Amino acid sequence: MRMPKSGFVNEENMAEVTDWYEVTMGGAYFTNSYKDRLNFELFVRKLPERRSYLVSAGLEQAIYYLQNMKFSEDYISWMKAQPEFENSDDGYFKGFFDYLRNFRFGADVWAVREGSIVFQNEPILRVTGTAIEAQYIETYVLNTLHIQTTIASKASKIVDAAKGIPVVDFGLRRAHDILASRAAYIGGCAATSNVFVAKTFGIPKSGTMAHSFILASDPELDAFRNYILASNSELEAFRNYGRTYPDHSVFLIDTYDIIEGAKNAIVVAKEMEKEGHRLKAVRVDSGDLLQMGRKVRGMLDKAGLNYVGIFVSGDLDEYKIDYLVKNNAPITGFGVGTKMDSSEDAPTINMIYKLDEIMNSRQRIPKIKLSKDKLTLPKRMPLRIYDRNGLFEKDILALDDEKIEGAHPLLVKIMEKGELIYDIPSLDEIRKYHLGQVSKLPEKYKSLENSVEYPVELSPGLEALTEKLIEEYKNGNNTNKGG
Amino acid sequence: MRMPKSGFVNEENMAEVTDWYEVTMGGAYFTNSYKDRLNFELFVRKLPERRSYLVSAGLEQAIYYLQNMKFSEDYISWMKAQPEFENSDDGYFKGFFDYLRNFRFGADVWAVREGSIVFQNEPILRVTGTAIEAQYIETYVLNTLHIQTTIASKASKIVDAAKGIPVVDFGLRRAHDILASRAAYIGGCAATSNVFVAKTFGIPKSGTMAHSFILASDPELDAFRNYILASNSELEAFRNYGRTYPDHSVFLIDTYDIIEGAKNAIVVAKEMEKEGHRLKAVRVDSGDLLQMGRKVRGMLDKAGLNYVGIFVSGDLDEYKIDYLVKNNAPITGFGVGTKMDSSEDAPTINMIYKLDEIMNSRQRIPKIKLSKDKLTLPKRMPLRIYDRNGLFEKDILALDDEKIEGAHPLLVKIMEKGELIYDIPSLDEIRKYHLGQVSKLPEKYKSLENSVEYPVELSPGLEALTEKLIEEYKNGNNTNKGG
Repeated sequence: MRMPKSGFVNEENMAEVTDWYEVTMGGAYFTNSYKDRLNFELFVRKLPERRSYLVSAGLEQAIYYLQNMKFSEDYISWMKAQPEFENSDDGYFKGFFDYLRNFRFGADVWAVREGSIVFQNEPILRVTGTAIEAQYIETYVLNTLHIQTTIASKASKIVDAAKGIPVVDFGLRRAHDILASRAAYIGGCAATSNVFVAKTFGIPKSGTMAHSFILASDPELDAFRNYILASNSELEAFRNYGRTYPDHSVFLIDTYDIIEGAKNAIVVAKEMEKEGHRLKAVRVDSGDLLQMGRKVRGMLDKAGLNYVGIFVSGDLDEYKIDYLVKNNAPITGFGVGTKMDSSEDAPTINMIYKLDEIMNSRQRIPKIKLSKDKLTLPKRMPLRIYDRNGLFEKDILALDDEKIEGAHPLLVKIMEKGELIYDIPSLDEIRKYHLGQVSKLPEKYKSLENSVEYPVELSPGLEALTEKLIEEYKNGNNTNKGG
Repeated sequence: MRMPKSGFVNEENMAEVTDWYEVTMGGAYFTNSYKDRLNFELFVRKLPERRSYLVSAGLEQAIYYLQNMKFSEDYISWMKAQPEFENSDDGYFKGFFDYLRNFRFGADVWAVREGSIVFQNEPILRVTGTAIEAQYIETYVLNTLHIQTTIASKASKIVDAAKGIPVVDFGLRRAHDILASRAAYIGGCAATSNVFVAKTFGIPKSGTMAHSFILASDPELDAFRNYILASNSELEAFRNYGRTYPDHSVFLIDTYDIIEGAKNAIVVAKEMEKEGHRLKAVRVDSGDLLQMGRKVRGMLDKAGLNYVGIFVSGDLDEYKIDYLVKNNAPITGFGVGTKMDSSEDAPTINMIYKLDEIMNSRQRIPKIKLSKDKLTLPKRMPLRIYDRNGLFEKDILALDDEKIEGAHPLLVKIMEKGELIYDIPSLDEIRKYHLGQVSKLPEKYKSLENSVEYPVELSPGLEALTEKLIEEYKNGNNTNKGG
């Protein structure tokens, strides 16, 4: 019998997570004795329609990959069995597989800190290395940074709309990537239902109960003959759950009828009070959350249960949360799922990894691309300028050696010749850093009504270089026509 | 220095990929000595707007998980350290962690075969087991089946639009989930650029070259002083690549100018011919693919290179491919990336896992949910009826023991008491099966212009049962008000 395969990525096989052309180009660079060093920059050319800013995320995983990637014997044997590499031992590819066998990523890497706010054309990562190493890693690094940045950016908007009311990530079941919950936390979520991410990265977890727990709590009933009121089984479910978790219970009150559910929750909460315990919250997962929230709040308060929170969920996004917050819904927490963990309205962003400089012993050759809507700038350092109130004023893309007064560079050196020289922050530190960044971003960039383009200017030096390259292109005597 | 973490899922930790409430509900079922068996069904309540059918995928990974999941000592210690489980050793939770320690998934599982075409309300997976086991696995299984089904469904539309011209999956860098390429292959793609998936599942891989290879092929130039025509370096890049892979080269001709690129490719292809080799294809990744395809085809044919294919890529989806195919573009292959591997226009589907029957020693209690737009039917078997030409006519949802003339059940028994009793097919077999299914689906369901709802009817038995439960609900004497 054929057995199933997991398809798990791990330390041994992660170098296989690449496009096949990265391998064949490696072979071509090697057999042609290509010696120059290349500089690549990973950036987003144009922000999606409903994003005024992006939140960089996924760097920790990218670094892990760069530090630990290797070509296993298993991978090398597989490569050698491919028709492209026939005669690989004695012929043209002599040495290539030994090179891979001894491969160790040895490039220099710069990156913006995770949780940073970034805009169009700003390098999020920069890699300077040999052609093979700087090129080969493209696919994995793009995959990792793309998915987490996409989701962290959506989460940041959602958390901002909640205006301080905690948002809990509930999206694992339809998440694009298991680490969506990591990205959601970077974007400012207060906790996650995802046990794996909570445990792996040491962040708060959260959870309530499922409708099935309520439904399954009437096992003795005969649905066809022995009718009793539905609420009886709900009451029983709350009692059972409250007895099991006397200080950590959130009762899901909308399995049958929200008002009846609230009544049952109140009965059990008062019983728990007598035992010295407190119900944490009730949860509503459907219906008109504003109207129901108000009604349930009234009922709880009237029963003296003002300490019991109201947690809501069900198809939430930044727009629905904004509506609830603006109408002062008496809600103490939001559970957000699918729409956040898939970044629903912008599930992909135009993130690319482009060659922009070639270095050899004699010189540096800047590379640009000039096709319509697809300008790729030469190698550049993103700088941030703050106004007198400490708010973001504008960003400037500059040459590395250019001095710009009052400008703060966004790229930090992460690896030197492949060695990690950066202290990886904890997820809590990253989240805190991100929330600090958001507090410095002027309100207009957080509007949910329309996207506002943040100014990202070229420095005098970068502008002069770009114009020079464009001029050379127009005169037909430049090698930088495309890319 | 703090070191980065990968966040890889593996055999040891995959049981942690779950929502925390699955754990706490498990604790509540255990401490309340809950004994009944539950039946859950995983299905899609409503197809997304631009999908007339879905393609089931991800079952192999779901089975792997069910077969191998376990609660590691590491996981159990972590759980015991959570405030919900304080006093776990001596008090209320005595026995729960031993139960988890010895846990082995022992439920019965049915599923539709991977690559099957499925519609609204049809169970894709059915799990019958104890409350804890049938509930706990919800999150992981949904995550896996959701992402692969979403992408396989998009891929199937794209492949169908290509009308037999091979479609190659190029989407790994922006894929939602590394196994997107596996799903794309199930949907009918001919190959993938994703080495990991090609190697792990034994399917064809594909790849050409990057623009950076062309750009990096003029290392000796000084862009500021020593101008030469751009095409010289492109010619050099093709020569280098062709020498390295004389029988496996596809030249990327749009780095600078497509027509100049085609001229260079022809020069090198003719040189290769003299050495007894054949250029496989040229690739165009930008511009007007129809017009350029025709021009380049003319140039190649005029040079006697009618065997050289034209492979196109760049932001393709089913609509662009349909346009090219309907206009007889002389294209021999499509490379499709982001829009397929993220299922761009429907990045999530409304896939759910719902309790629909409770069994104890005395009886079976069907459960339905009746809220607006959210009808959850009782436990049901999806059956397919073919017309006299062997095409799909309609599907019927029936009771398990109901006999319907000429109807073919879609659910296959996969596991019995947790033991695998199903021979996992290879990815090639799954793809072939899927393409066979598509050939039996009437054309109207494949239209790109509008979605057409396929008839999924209730059998007399299921209809009678559903009506009875609704009637009981209306009379207020039923426990099946919600779910």
